[in-house]
Amino acid sequence: MKYSEAGVSIDAQNDSNERIKKHVRSTHTEHVVTDVGHFAGSVKLPSNLSDPVLIMSTDGVGTKTIIAEQLGRFESLGADIVHNCGNDVLAVGAEPKYFTDYVASAQLKPEVVEEIVKGIAEACKNLGIVLMGGETAEMPGVYRESRHDLVGTMVGIAERSMLFDSSQIKEGDAIIGLPSNGVHTNGYSLVRKIVEARGLDLTIDYDMGMSLGELLLLPHRDYVKDIMGLRQYVTIRGLAHITGGGITENVPRMFPEGLGAAINLGGWKIPLLFQFIQQQGDVSQEEMLRTFNCGVGMVLVVPKEEKNNVLSRIESYDLGTVVVGKGVTYTNY
Amino acid sequence: MKYSEAGVSIDAQNDSNERIKKHVRSTHTEHVVTDVGHFAGSVKLPSNLSDPVLIMSTDGVGTKTIIAEQLGRFESLGADIVHNCGNDVLAVGAEPKYFTDYVASAQLKPEVVEEIVKGIAEACKNLGIVLMGGETAEMPGVYRESRHDLVGTMVGIAERSMLFDSSQIKEGDAIIGLPSNGVHTNGYSLVRKIVEARGLDLTIDYDMGMSLGELLLLPHRDYVKDIMGLRQYVTIRGLAHITGGGITENVPRMFPEGLGAAINLGGWKIPLLFQFIQQQGDVSQEEMLRTFNCGVGMVLVVPKEEKNNVLSRIESYDLGTVVVGKGVTYTNY
Repeated sequence: MKYSEAGVSIDAQNDSNERIKKHVRSTHTEHVVTDVGHFAGSVKLPSNLSDPVLIMSTDGVGTKTIIAEQLGRFESLGADIVHNCGNDVLAVGAEPKYFTDYVASAQLKPEVVEEIVKGIAEACKNLGIVLMGGETAEMPGVYRESRHDLVGTMVGIAERSMLFDSSQIKEGDAIIGLPSNGVHTNGYSLVRKIVEARGLDLTIDYDMGMSLGELLLLPHRDYVKDIMGLRQYVTIRGLAHITGGGITENVPRMFPEGLGAAINLGGWKIPLLFQFIQQQGDVSQEEMLRTFNCGVGMVLVVPKEEKNNVLSRIESYDLGTVVVGKGVTYTNY
Repeated sequence: MKYSEAGVSIDAQNDSNERIKKHVRSTHTEHVVTDVGHFAGSVKLPSNLSDPVLIMSTDGVGTKTIIAEQLGRFESLGADIVHNCGNDVLAVGAEPKYFTDYVASAQLKPEVVEEIVKGIAEACKNLGIVLMGGETAEMPGVYRESRHDLVGTMVGIAERSMLFDSSQIKEGDAIIGLPSNGVHTNGYSLVRKIVEARGLDLTIDYDMGMSLGELLLLPHRDYVKDIMGLRQYVTIRGLAHITGGGITENVPRMFPEGLGAAINLGGWKIPLLFQFIQQQGDVSQEEMLRTFNCGVGMVLVVPKEEKNNVLSRIESYDLGTVVVGKGVTYTNY
C-alpha cells in the first residue's frame, strides 16, 4: 500500500510547496534570516525597544471557504485571514508584523493552494507583514469532499506602553464604529443556510449593486492604517474587533468590570446585504446583532471630548456611550 | 432563523471558553500582560538580547484526531500539537516559548475542547511555554460528522548567534538520530487505511506490549530538554525534525546545496509498531521511509569527532555520514 492510496499525495504537497515559494519570498525583507522551506521561519526583531511585548492571535475564516469554492475564486480569502488575524493583534494595540498560515482540505489542489497563498502574500505586503511560513495538510476523512479550512496566526511586537489600557475606560466615554466591508469572516454558516433554504443564486444581483456571491466574498477589512494613523491625534482607550458574537459580545470584551455600552441603532445604517440576509432568513434583530458585524467591523472607545476629532478624521459612526452596567444595551431597537 | 439552527452554537462556544480559561491561565507567568479572553494574548519579552530573532512555525496533528475519536481519548493530542510545533522551532535553534492553538469540528463538544486544551496546557507547563490564546470553530459543512482538526503555532525568541548554522555542515560530519515515541503526527491516513483494509481492532494488543490504539495515540515526543542540554557540550550544526516525508525528505532540508546523507538502515532497530504497519499494509521500505519517522524523531548533524560524545550522553543512534551528493542514500537496504 502507498500513502497516496490513502488519499495523501506527498507529490501534490511538494508541487504546492514549489508554487508558493515565490509568493512567500515576496513578503521577505532584509530582516528575514531563514529561507522558505526550513522547519520554522525566523526574522530579526527590532532591538531598540525598552519594554518589548509580544502579541499573538490565531483565527480562521470559517465557512466562507465554501462560498469561495462555489464561485471557484480563492484569492480574496488571503486578505480575509491576514486582516482577520491582524485586527485581533491591532485590538490589543500593536501593529501586526509576522504571520503563518494553515491550509487544509480533503484533497489539495496545488493551484488552489497557490491562489490562497498568493492572496495571503499580497495582503501581507500591503501591511508590511512577513509571511514566516505555513502548513498545508491533506486530510481525507476529516474534511468533507472539496472543502477547505484556512487558519492564520499573527504576531506583533510593541512597546508595552503602546498597548491600549482599557482600565482607563470611563462612564461617558464615546463609542465609535468603523465600517465593515461586508460579512467579513463570521456568520457564514447561517448565510449559507439561508441561501439554501430560499434557493438564492450566488450569481444574481439582488439589487445590491453586485452579485450576492461577490458581496459575500468581499474580504475582511483591515483597520491597521486607520487606527495607527488615528493614534497620532487621539487617545484610544479600547478597541473591539467585531467578529463572531457581533457587537453584542465583542464590545464588552474591552470593558473593565462594571461598565457596559449603550449603543444607538440609529447611529449607523445597516448595509443592504445585512438587511437582505435578515429578510430572507427571517432573522431577529437580536440574532443579527450577535451573529454578524451588521456593518461595523471595529469599535473604538475614546474620551468624549475626542469624539468629534475621530468622526471628522475618518469615516466612522457615533454609536453611543460607555455606561455603568454590563454588556450592550441597544436603543432605537 | 437562528445561528444555532445553522449548526453553530455560540452558547456551546461560550461554554467551551469558560471551561478552558483555567487551563490557559495555568500556563501564565508573571510576564503575561493580558488576561484570557482578550482579542490577542500578550507577554513581556526578555529585553536583554543584543540581536533578537523571532522564530515561528505552524503545524497540525493530521488525522491522528480520528484515532482519538475512535478511542474517545483526546487529552494526549495536546502534547502532540505542542511538541510537534515546538520541535520545528527547536530545529532552527530556539526554545519554543509562546503557543496558540486552533480546534475545529463539525460540532464542538465543550468537554472535548476542554480535554484537548487541558492536554495542551499540561504540555506547555512542562516546557515553560505560555499558552497565549486560541480559537475554537464550529464548521458544519466543512468537517465530517464528529471529526476534528487541531492546529498550533509556536513562537520562540533567541539570540541570532544561537540559531544552528547549517552552512557549517561538512562532508564527513556525523548524522545521529534520536528515538521517536511512535508514529508522532504523520502518516495516520495510511495507518487508518491499513487498519480498515485488514480489519484490525484498535483495542487488541498484537504482541506489541500495548493495544494498537494506545500505541497509535502515544504523543509526539519533545526534544527540547535533550537538545538544549546537549548544546552545552556539543556543537550541533543542524537539526531535522522528522515529520511528513520521513527521514527521506526531512534530513536533506538542513543541508547546504551539494551535500546529502548516507544513512545506514542497520543503525537503529525499526520499532515493532512500524514493522507491524509495514507487514499488515504490505508497504515498501521506500514508502515507509518517506511516510513515517520509522523510529527516529529528530536527526542531528555534529562534527565527526563529537559523535561519540553525543552517543554516550543521550539515547541516540549512529545513523550515518554527510556525503557529497543530494538527498538520502540508504545502505543495508
